[in-house]
Amino acid sequence: MNSHDGTPAASRRGRRPGSSGTREAILNAARQSFAAKGLDRTTVRGVARDAGVDPGLITHYFGGKAALFTEAMRLPFTPEEVLPSIIEGDRAQIGRRLAAFALGQWENAASRERLIGIIRAACSDPTAATLLRDLIERDLFAPLARALDVPNAEARAALCASQIVGLAIVRHILRVPALATADPADVAEWIAPTLQRYLIDDMPFTEET
Amino acid sequence: MNSHDGTPAASRRGRRPGSSGTREAILNAARQSFAAKGLDRTTVRGVARDAGVDPGLITHYFGGKAALFTEAMRLPFTPEEVLPSIIEGDRAQIGRRLAAFALGQWENAASRERLIGIIRAACSDPTAATLLRDLIERDLFAPLARALDVPNAEARAALCASQIVGLAIVRHILRVPALATADPADVAEWIAPTLQRYLIDDMPFTEET
Repeated sequence: MNSHDGTPAASRRGRRPGSSGTREAILNAARQSFAAKGLDRTTVRGVARDAGVDPGLITHYFGGKAALFTEAMRLPFTPEEVLPSIIEGDRAQIGRRLAAFALGQWENAASRERLIGIIRAACSDPTAATLLRDLIERDLFAPLARALDVPNAEARAALCASQIVGLAIVRHILRVPALATADPADVAEWIAPTLQRYLIDDMPFTEET
Repeated sequence: MNSHDGTPAASRRGRRPGSSGTREAILNAARQSFAAKGLDRTTVRGVARDAGVDPGLITHYFGGKAALFTEAMRLPFTPEEVLPSIIEGDRAQIGRRLAAFALGQWENAASRERLIGIIRAACSDPTAATLLRDLIERDLFAPLARALDVPNAEARAALCASQIVGLAIVRHILRVPALATADPADVAEWIAPTLQRYLIDDMPFTEET
């Protein structure tokens, strides 16, 4: 497994200190709260306390909880930058590249918090569910399957997403030891053939779309 | 695909009318609320309103929200009855039998509500997460993998669970059309080889346990 973690350089850029540092501290506290408690139990007051700032500052920077959520839950990667890195290259290895990308995202604490926060919130909140559905149908999985010029791209994309979302839950939310403690490169190898088959192999679809 | 929906006869038994009917009406309202809103946003008062009963009756029957949750989230099947129906028979078809069992459970509205309610709640609530972890590590998936006498049963079980939980989310919570509108027998065929490989085929585990 190579060290490609799928994090584009742009999201690693540091922010200047001062007001940007405060803003980032608020976003970090919000991400941790959304990931730990979900959207409902997260409050502006609680995030302010965790970030060590006045609640009014959150209103000043973000307007309110909904806008704070949108900003905190922004994807930790840029799909347009990630897609070519998965699509290009040996088609027989595409499942492995997608698996390595997903596992790599979860290895980085900041991107893991954002992605797990989205999944967690999506399970009970319609706004967050839309974010995750967009990632499947519009931003990442469907464009990936469509680029491969295979029939039933939408179903293939949704199946890949189902394996990756389920793995995130069992590994990072339920933390079942057999997956939670396993080496990410190993886990990527375990699911790579699944993604490969869903994406590109012959599948028993009943109609071609 | 046969019509086996994995629901043991016991859970189909009707309850006598009168107080048992009221109790069941409360449980149904609770299941719908837990599935739609999660544990946090569900209130005894709201469930009472949905069930058309006095909130005091819920306290009378169940004691409070936590006990109501435990009772409402009881598995819609008995693992000891289900396990033999998946384990016994052609080993080359075990992935297909497990897939058919999962899809069958979701076809039945009552068991789907309970299972989706558990998954939804498990993503944000530690008590519900324990329920789901128990289903993986103790009640269903791990016993299934162990019965097959293959190495790395725990990892195999957790991988199967990850695919099934992820599918439940994409199909029944996010409702991505390519999976949500597909025929359950077709979806079972799409994931059956994944489960078959995770359960019983050679897998690149780095150590045998």
